[in-house]
This record gives sequence, structure tokens and C-alpha cells, in this order.
Amino acid sequence: MTKDTIGIGLVGTGFMGKCHALAWNAVAATFGETRRPVLRHLADVDVGRARRCAAEWGFEAATDDWRAVIHDPAVEIVSIAAPNPFHAEMACAALAAGRHVWCEKPMATTMADAQAMLDAAGRSGRIAALGYNYIQNPAIRAIEALVREGAIGDLNHVRVEMDEDFMGDPDAPFAFKNEARSGHGALDDFAVHPLSLLGRLAGPLAAVMAEQAKPYAAREGRPVETHEIAMALLRFASGASGLLVANRAAWGRKGRIALQLFGSKGTIAFDQERMNEFQLFTREDDPRREGFRTVLAGPAHEPYGHFLPAPGHGLGFNDLKVIEAHEILAAIDGRPARIVDFADGLAIEAAVAAMARSHAERRWIEL
Amino acid sequence: MTKDTIGIGLVGTGFMGKCHALAWNAVAATFGETRRPVLRHLADVDVGRARRCAAEWGFEAATDDWRAVIHDPAVEIVSIAAPNPFHAEMACAALAAGRHVWCEKPMATTMADAQAMLDAAGRSGRIAALGYNYIQNPAIRAIEALVREGAIGDLNHVRVEMDEDFMGDPDAPFAFKNEARSGHGALDDFAVHPLSLLGRLAGPLAAVMAEQAKPYAAREGRPVETHEIAMALLRFASGASGLLVANRAAWGRKGRIALQLFGSKGTIAFDQERMNEFQLFTREDDPRREGFRTVLAGPAHEPYGHFLPAPGHGLGFNDLKVIEAHEILAAIDGRPARIVDFADGLAIEAAVAAMARSHAERRWIEL
Amino acid sequence: MTKDTIGIGLVGTGFMGKCHALAWNAVAATFGETRRPVLRHLADVDVGRARRCAAEWGFEAATDDWRAVIHDPAVEIVSIAAPNPFHAEMACAALAAGRHVWCEKPMATTMADAQAMLDAAGRSGRIAALGYNYIQNPAIRAIEALVREGAIGDLNHVRVEMDEDFMGDPDAPFAFKNEARSGHGALDDFAVHPLSLLGRLAGPLAAVMAEQAKPYAAREGRPVETHEIAMALLRFASGASGLLVANRAAWGRKGRIALQLFGSKGTIAFDQERMNEFQLFTREDDPRREGFRTVLAGPAHEPYGHFLPAPGHGLGFNDLKVIEAHEILAAIDGRPARIVDFADGLAIEAAVAAMARSHAERRWIEL
Amino acid sequence: MTKDTIGIGLVGTGFMGKCHALAWNAVAATFGETRRPVLRHLADVDVGRARRCAAEWGFEAATDDWRAVIHDPAVEIVSIAAPNPFHAEMACAALAAGRHVWCEKPMATTMADAQAMLDAAGRSGRIAALGYNYIQNPAIRAIEALVREGAIGDLNHVRVEMDEDFMGDPDAPFAFKNEARSGHGALDDFAVHPLSLLGRLAGPLAAVMAEQAKPYAAREGRPVETHEIAMALLRFASGASGLLVANRAAWGRKGRIALQLFGSKGTIAFDQERMNEFQLFTREDDPRREGFRTVLAGPAHEPYGHFLPAPGHGLGFNDLKVIEAHEILAAIDGRPARIVDFADGLAIEAAVAAMARSHAERRWIEL
Repeated sequence: MTKDTIGIGLVGTGFMGKCHALAWNAVAATFGETRRPVLRHLADVDVGRARRCAAEWGFEAATDDWRAVIHDPAVEIVSIAAPNPFHAEMACAALAAGRHVWCEKPMATTMADAQAMLDAAGRSGRIAALGYNYIQNPAIRAIEALVREGAIGDLNHVRVEMDEDFMGDPDAPFAFKNEARSGHGALDDFAVHPLSLLGRLAGPLAAVMAEQAKPYAAREGRPVETHEIAMALLRFASGASGLLVANRAAWGRKGRIALQLFGSKGTIAFDQERMNEFQLFTREDDPRREGFRTVLAGPAHEPYGHFLPAPGHGLGFNDLKVIEAHEILAAIDGRPARIVDFADGLAIEAAVAAMARSHAERRWIEL
Repeated sequence: MTKDTIGIGLVGTGFMGKCHALAWNAVAATFGETRRPVLRHLADVDVGRARRCAAEWGFEAATDDWRAVIHDPAVEIVSIAAPNPFHAEMACAALAAGRHVWCEKPMATTMADAQAMLDAAGRSGRIAALGYNYIQNPAIRAIEALVREGAIGDLNHVRVEMDEDFMGDPDAPFAFKNEARSGHGALDDFAVHPLSLLGRLAGPLAAVMAEQAKPYAAREGRPVETHEIAMALLRFASGASGLLVANRAAWGRKGRIALQLFGSKGTIAFDQERMNEFQLFTREDDPRREGFRTVLAGPAHEPYGHFLPAPGHGLGFNDLKVIEAHEILAAIDGRPARIVDFADGLAIEAAVAAMARSHAERRWIEL
Repeated sequence: MTKDTIGIGLVGTGFMGKCHALAWNAVAATFGETRRPVLRHLADVDVGRARRCAAEWGFEAATDDWRAVIHDPAVEIVSIAAPNPFHAEMACAALAAGRHVWCEKPMATTMADAQAMLDAAGRSGRIAALGYNYIQNPAIRAIEALVREGAIGDLNHVRVEMDEDFMGDPDAPFAFKNEARSGHGALDDFAVHPLSLLGRLAGPLAAVMAEQAKPYAAREGRPVETHEIAMALLRFASGASGLLVANRAAWGRKGRIALQLFGSKGTIAFDQERMNEFQLFTREDDPRREGFRTVLAGPAHEPYGHFLPAPGHGLGFNDLKVIEAHEILAAIDGRPARIVDFADGLAIEAAVAAMARSHAERRWIEL
Repeated sequence: MTKDTIGIGLVGTGFMGKCHALAWNAVAATFGETRRPVLRHLADVDVGRARRCAAEWGFEAATDDWRAVIHDPAVEIVSIAAPNPFHAEMACAALAAGRHVWCEKPMATTMADAQAMLDAAGRSGRIAALGYNYIQNPAIRAIEALVREGAIGDLNHVRVEMDEDFMGDPDAPFAFKNEARSGHGALDDFAVHPLSLLGRLAGPLAAVMAEQAKPYAAREGRPVETHEIAMALLRFASGASGLLVANRAAWGRKGRIALQLFGSKGTIAFDQERMNEFQLFTREDDPRREGFRTVLAGPAHEPYGHFLPAPGHGLGFNDLKVIEAHEILAAIDGRPARIVDFADGLAIEAAVAAMARSHAERRWIEL
């Protein structure tokens, strides 16, 4: 059956590279897009790997030169899933070449690079989005709608925790993530995800007071330069107070992003490890019946119904990326879209930078 | 990138039709199949719908004649997601035409039809599998492995509950599912799923004692002919005892399949509504530390790692169908595969028939 | 401060003996009773133990002769916490002596004895209550009220599971509980508790179809005569269907009594292992907000407020016995009381007997 | 049965007054104390209430003069459950009169008063303990033991949240707790409880960075002077990092004290709303079996077995106070005891004062 198409290029074949490929493969059948994405060109520094992945994932061509992807005339959208230090150069080049860009988080490794990316996006007139897929969860979208509708009254206090344990082993060898050139640690590696959620759910930050910590001072006798733990007190522009904490060394936590939103009439809680449900408390006339209800995601929570007509059956992590691809296609078509664009991304980077500075100067930093 | 392909035909465009289409679209990129499925031909009784879905889902052709799909020389595998009464005729015809068949559960509406399907499969030499996707869950596969390894000792007692609430409203109009010609009710509509799990986890049944119940005797003044609730006492060939209950009118349950497996050294529990985790209890030397542990699915649980390298990030319901498609491709290639074939399916149908008879005759029925 | 008193006698110093003593000690201060219980006389077959416990628990006298307790003129209520085979003789004697009786469950070891106890109670004009403390839980009382008020509509299906693991070890020595003279096993040892709950929550039983099972056929080479597992299909007089299962060999379960009550408008769930909360689902106009709510017990749930003014702070198992003591005092005073009297107790024993017969005869038994 | 006794005086008849009375009533029977507490004298400013409560709770005498209690020669221990501003005067007077003191938390409303109390205790040679009952929970005691034994390796990060909702209603009238003279708000009203736990579980604090917040700036048009929310970044003397947050306006939370303890080999979590269980994660050789285990409190967790021989049956909030009374009697007898003495209490008050100062000066404060 003929249908309009849109050409996809992808740079990178790791966790996120495959995730983008799966999303581009699935989005048309899931959402019935007006234009069917066609996987045109895949780049990886290892050309053999590029070829193998291209064959598996359905790309028409493979290369070890990311510029070949960007300049391939069949490519209209470039997915960037290369290591963080390359994001800025690749994104700016792709935008300059007239491509739409879907770049994985975090935006860049310096504020200057992030600003350059935003400038490039502005000049290009193209869609430039960042890969913050957690905001695409139907449960999160429902939470956001409930907050906006006043279901829990005025939001006055927020907590968010992001925990995994891949840096938990004190006996693991010294690695790239222990080096200062990899970034701050949990702060930029992790906390950007909760910040993307807070941006949607609680609005802009006004001030932060942060602290970082090292559970293990050294590995293999070599001082660890990054911090597995980042914590911050928050003040939002709305006046709400908050807490953020991220820990890459939290044994037993595998994908925890635990949100608590407190309002004048109720409370909402969520944990990404149980991503298909959220907890809602609202005051009841009959106190015998009051309690946090566990709401299971279903077709009532957009866009769950595009995947499944049956509630409580559950989406997966990769499905969030399919939704993100759909939103990017909507943005390209000029329809309303739920994306983290480069301006939103810069705000997240600015918050990270403010937290790093707060830690260094041991004081509150206004944003 | 060129790669061997295998042609897919699909009959049906409902919940399961889309689910098959998504699975065929995703399986090669997810698992790196040796042959890439190509979506060749889609049938629906409504040709307009067939065409729209074909365009969205990526099928090359559409028809309102299911025989056209089966006899399309480009089609090598036929996915059957048409209403249950058509399964037998379609599956037999497809097998006779030399196609592999992936037919949605339940197998058929009569034991005779189910037997005819098994016979047709035997004659064809083709792969004939049923759509029991819950057994494909990495968590379920891990539970099965743990049981076989003796992690909980000898299994001696099993309970399974399957509950949803789509028939819960007493004021809903009289519908097809209330008519006897739709089947028994929860028994064949629902209980086949738990039976597919018990077959893997607890082995064959030896005897059943069943009872069915109607929460609402009538709708719109018309007697309800089916039973929303089915319950059974079970005895397994191993000597283990068990309970099975299914309820289509269980308010608040959306996709619950709650398993409890009791052994001589431990216990395992699982609930499909939280499909990415299971509970494991084993005895500990130190009773202060004993407890059910919540294990989050991850790459240690095959084949989770084909979707995601990060544990605790979660698969969705549709991913189970992708795994099922992968297993069918493995079976076609002659590799070991985890499928419910027509012989397994017939055993499930036999258990259902025995339960229906037990209910009618109010006595234990041996299998 | 002077206050009217009421004299307490107790027979037995085990788990339940101490539990009664603690309850009699606490009830006046907790509830502000019109008459303060005074611990007059304690009996145990081991007189040394009787004396030690009397000193610790605050009894004025100790004896190894239970008849001395019953005939002590200072004793007005006799708590019977002796082994089950003695219940009937002691209760009948105490009632004949004009004492009120609070006898631990189960009532007796034969139906004839239970009937004799009921007759003795009728002749005496005294209060005769059984120790079924789980019905006293404020959460259970709230559930009962909600069901009666129609919060979940018409109750049409019930499930109850009672599981502990004290008989779980296959290598434990052959013990009294493995002998037929100890009773049926889980059926009378355990299932009486769920039956006491079902009697309050779902009304009388009409028919049962039961099965018992032995996880371990022998211990120390000697055949096990009792059944650690009892299961039953239920039909209530109301027409509701149900399931009951009890397992004394359920590894990891320590005090689980899991209830599920399904109605035409909602569902309630409860687990004694988290005795201070219950789950309530009711249909909502907005499906985005629908879910099981976890209600924490608090002063809104009678009689929680007599223990604590703060919700969510929690009662314990022993507090349920204090409530039971309070209800017995209320009954003695002629006030409305929530007790399981000997007539209620006989109905429980009749259900157990019917299940045992159903198991033996492999057929449904009407009650 | 004769037994040595010890005389109890109590000042106050509110929530905590009754809780002390229940504990003194229950402790001997629960623990088999060498000396049986006898309730001698009860004071309340309302003499009628004092008399009614004395009659109910079993006190021999009642008064509206707290000094009469303290100087009653039959009184050996004074329980102080009067409003916070009276703690210092009463405790100092009781100690000066040679009585042992059990004073409810918080210690006092000023650091000077708290110091005076500690000095008075030192001069008296009597036992002076504070009512921090949460540390008495068998689950908390087990967590502490596990941490000390190294079950989770070296503790490197801690989080604690304490939330209730009694100040959640924005439309509630302006009340005493909204006035500055009542204290800081959540900081001293609430956070002292988590601080008592952290003192046992994580050791002394080295520095704090705190912030307080007001969800509702005014009530009835009058500015609210206290803060319902207190948050703090923590650094412990051990080098561990941490977070503390307390919220009296957290809708739906009724008695939440959520602890998370992260170590180099595992993690422990606990929530007071489910006080009879805790979560323990330790690394396993087989990653397929790794997960947080839910440990139910039982006789393996001291001193649970003094209440109940059966695990998983559950203690209640009031039972924690019974344990506290037992520990105070142990201390009086010169046995090892688990109490928060006035020196420990002063450390808690110092932490609160440091947090208040940190909030005021917007900087880290060393302790």
C-alpha cells in the first residue's frame, strides 16, 4: 500500500541507538502516521557493526561516517545517539544541513555547546528535540493533566528521587564515568531526567541548593573524580518547595524515578519501576474511604490506546520512545506536540549548571 | 541492506490483529532474525478497514477475502486473529496450503474442531502455534526455570486467578458474550490463559472439579446464558493440588493473572498487572532476613536483554507478542522454541471441556 | 479511684492464654469500661508455671486445677485457652457454674461436643463467646459496614486464603499436628478463621465442595494423617459464589488472611499481614482516576479511636483481643455486642464438618 | 500473687497521656518485669478529667496539681505528657524530687531549657528518658542490628521522610500550631522523630543545610508564622550524605516515616505506615533472584516475641510504648537499656536548632 514516507538517519548503535531504531520501526503501525518513516542510513564508528545493525534493524545503508548520514538526501530526520561529547557538533551540523534532529539527552557537555545547539535550531527552522522519553509515559501525561485540572489543588511541594545501582559496586574497576571529563556524575548523567519531569509537572525552578557525594572515594587506588550522588533543595518560580536526589550507587534500585507531588487538596505519587500505574490521593467526604488509589494506565490515559485497547495490560520502556517518535512527527507536521525542544533542554542544562555551582560554592543559586 | 525475508499474512484487524502486526514489524530489529518478516497481505471483512490498516501497519496488499491471504504465494506464515468460530477453518486451510500458522487463542469453539486443527498440523509438517503470549514474559520464563532448578523445592500447591472487569457492569446491555453460542464464559474466554501458564509451570492436570457462576442472571430482561465466573479445584499429574478462578466481572481488576506456586522450600508469586516483577521466597539461615523478594525483570531474565540492556526498565504487553513471533521464527528454522503448539493447545481445550463437564455433572472429572 | 469490678479466671498459659491476660489487663484503660476486670485466678497443669504467669500477668491466685478457677466465687468470666479437646468440658462446667465464658476457637473437636456447648450456654443464660478476634479488626468492621451500605453493590463473589508456613518444613519431625486425633489439619485448625470472617461479610453458606491435600505424605517414615492444605468451592445462601483455601505449609506466609469481595459496583480486598489497611475499588465517573485505594485504618474506623486518635499509626494483633474483651463486657452488660457466640460457632463447625464430608465423599454437600 | 512494685505518676491525659497509662498497665504482663508498675497518681489541669481518667486507667489518685504527683511518696517514676512548654519545669522538679522521669518528646522549647534538663538529670542520678517510641519498633531494632553487622556494607547515604496531613487543609482556621510561639513547625514538631532514628541508625550529624516552607501563607486572613514543611541536606560524622524532610500538610500520609539506608553492599527501606515490615536488598550471586525482600517482623526480631510467638501477626503503635516502658524499667534496674536519654535528646534539639539557623542564614551549619 503506498503511503508518504519520511527518511530517517541514525548515528549510534548502543542502548539508545537500538531504542531509536525500534521506535522508528514501530511508530507508523502504532499511531497510523501520515508519513511512514523509512530507515535510510545508519552510522557507527565501527563499520562492521553499522552494517550488522543496519541489516537487523532495517536500514537501507550503513557507514562509519556520521556526516554521510546527515548529508544523505534521503534523510529528513537525524536521530543522534552517539556519546554525549558529540551531540553538539552533530546536532548543529544536521540542523545546518536542513535536517530535523532528535538528539539523546543530555543536550551537551557544556552550557556553551548547549547554547550553540539552541542557536542552530533557531536558525534552521527545523524541529530539534531531545530524548527525554519519561515525559511520554501515559501515566505521567495523566498526572500532568490532573495537576493542571486542579485535582490535587495548588501544588506546593515536590520530591523526586532517581536511583539505579550500576555504580554501586565498590570493587568495580576505575572507569570513564569516574573521570571528571565524563561530567559531574549523577547530576548530569541522571538528574536531567527528573528535571525534565519537573519542568512539565511543577514549572520552572527559581533557586537550588545542591550537594554532591561520593560513596567510594577511590577505585583501584585512584581517586574517583565524579559524584554518584547528587541532592538538591529546590524552590520553584511558583513558590513551591522541593527536593531532588539522584544516586547511581543505590543497590537494588534498577530504574527508580519516584515522584511525589503534594497539593492543597491531594497528593500524587509515581515510580518508574512500576511505570504503568500511579497513586492518587484526594480528600473524601467519608474519611472511612480515604486512601491513595493505584490507578492502572489504560486507554483513558493518552496515548495508551494506540498500543492497546485493554487497560492494565501495560506498556514498556521502549513504547515511550515510540510515543516520542510520534510526537516528533507531529511537531514536524506542525501539529501540537509534546516534546522537550532545545529551549527546554537548555533550561535543564542551566539547572544542572546551577546545582554544580551551588555545590562548589556551598550556597543557594538563583536561576 | 539485503537480508533474507519471510512473508507474513494476517487475517483480522482487531486488538490481536494489530498486536500481530506490531510484533511482525518489530521482531527482526529486536532479535536480529536470520529472516526479516515482510508484511505481505492483510484481510478484514471490511475491505476499507483492511486497506487503511494495511497502509498504517505496512502491509503490501489488502483484501476482504481471507483465502486470498492464505493462497498468496508471497505469504509463508499466516497470523489468524479473526473471531474464534473461524479459527478452525482458517487454520486448516492455511496449513493445507502449506503455510505456517500462528492462531490466536482459544484454539476453537469445539473439541472436534480443535482435534481437526491438530490433525491438519500433523499432516502439513508446518509450524502451528497458538497465541498464548503470557508464557513469553521473561518473568514467567524465569519462574519456570527457578521451579525446574528446584529453587522452591518440590511444587505441591498452585493457585491462579485471572480477573478483569469488562463484564462487571450489571446495567450494560445484553451482548454476544452473554449468549451460549459465544462459549461458556470466563471458562473458555479467560481460563485458557492461566491454563497455558499452568501447563508450563506445573505440568499436566489429572483431575478437575469446577463450578461456574453468574453474577447477573439477566440483562435487559433477557437471561444471561454464559458465566462470568469460573472456579476449579485442580489435581495435577504430579500430585500437586491447585485452584483456578477466572472472573470477567471483577471490578477494578484490569489484567490480573495472579499466580502462587508453593514448594517444599519456597514460594513464588506473580501478577500480570505488574508483569515486570515476581516475588520469590526461599528459606534463609537467618530468620531475621527472611521475606518475599520482589525481583525486577532485567537482562538476567531471557530474553529481556534483546529489548533493553538495563534492568528494571520494563517491557510491555506488546513486547510479549514480539517474543512469541521470535519463537515461531525459531521453530520454523528448526531451532528450540518456546511455543504453545496445537498439541499443547488441545490439552488446554481438553481441560476446559473437562471443567465444563464437571460443572454440568457436579463431580470431579479425570483427565 | 474506686470503680465496679468484674472477676476474671483464665485456664491456659500458652499463646492465647497470655493474649487473654493482656486483653483483660488493657481493656478498661482502653475503653473506659463500667466495670474494671480484676484478674482473680489462673490455672495451668504445671502449677509452677501457673504461679509464675500469675505473678507476671497480675492474677491474684494460681492453681493446677481448672475447676478451682471455675468455682472460685470471685470469678465471673472464665477465659478458656486450654488445648482444644478440653474446650467442651471446661465451657460446659463453667456455664453450669454460672460463669460467662470466653472460649478460644475452635469450639470443640466434635460436632456433638459443640452442640453440647451451645445447649449449656442456652441453659445458663450467660454470655458464651468464642475467640475469633480477626472479626474485631477495625478494618474488617469497616469492610463489613461498607458492604452493608452497598458501597460495592451486591456481593456476588468472595475469595479467602489463609496461609502460614509453620508446617512447611518437610524435614520437621512427625508431630501431634500430623496425627488424625489432632483434627483434619488446615481445615479445622485454620479455616475456621476465614469462616468467621465470611459469616460476617457474606452471610451463611448453602453448599460446599472441598478437597484436602498433603504436601508431604510422610515424616520420619511415618505417614502423615492430617492435611496441611484445605480448599473449597463455596455457594452462599445469597447466591454468591466463593473460594476458600487454607495452607499451613505455605512458605513465606506468616499470617496471611487474604480476602477479596466482589460486588456489582466495586471490590474490596484485605490481607491480615497488613491488618491496618484495606483496598477499596469503586467505579468512578472519570476512568482516568479509577483504582484500588489503600485505606489506612484510623479513628473513622470503629473502635480504632479508643486506642489512638491518630490515623495510620496502627493497631496490633493483641489489640484485636482487647476489642474482643470489650465486646464480651458489652454483651454481659446487655449492650449490643459484636461477638461470635456459641450459635455462630456451631455454624462454623458445621461448615467444617460439611467440608470434611465433601472431601471424603468427593461431592457437593448442602448446609 | 505478691511481687515487688514500682509507683507511677503521670502528668497529662491527652494522646500521649493515655499511651503512657496503657503502657504502664501492660508492661509487666508483657515482659514479666521484676517490679510491677502500680499506677499511683494522675494529674490534669481539669480535675474532673483527671478523676475520670484515673478511674478508667487504674490510677489510685487524681489531682489538678502536677506537683502533688511529683511529691507523692508512692511515686517513683513520673511520666510527663503535658504540653511541650511545661516539660522543662516538670522534668527538673521531678528529678530534683528524686523521681525517675519519662518525658514526652520534644525535650523542651528552647536549647537553654533542654540543657537545664540534662543538668538536672546529671545532678539527680535518676533515669531521665525521652518518649521516642519509634526506635523501639522490633523492625527498627533489626534494621539497626543488620546495619551494624554489615549486612548492607558501609552506610553511605540516608533518606528519611516524615509526613502526615493534619495541617493539610488550607481552609482550616488559624490555630496555635500556626503561631511562632508553638515552635518552628514541622521542624521541631515532626523532624525530631526521624532524628531519633538517624541517631541510632546513622550516627551523629556533622553538618546540615535546611530550608523551611509554608504551603499556605495565611489562614483566616492572618499570616501563618510556622512552617509545615522542613527539608535538610545532611552530612554525617561518618562521611555519609543524607536528606531529611518533614511535612505536616502531606495529604494522604497518616503516619509515614519512610527510611532508606544505602550501603556499599545493599539497601534497607522502611515505612512506619507498615511498621511490621522492612525491605532488605543485598547482592546475590544469581542476578535472576536479586530483589528487595519484604521481611515481616516476628520473634526473630527482638522483643517481638514478648508480645506474640507467631511471626507476621503484627504489633501496633501502642506496643512500641510498652517496649519503651520496659526499657526504662531496665535502665532503672541498671540493666542495658535502649532509651533516648537526656544527652541523646539534647543532640536532637541541637540538630533542630542548627537546621533553624541554617534556614535563617541560608547556609550550611556545622554541628
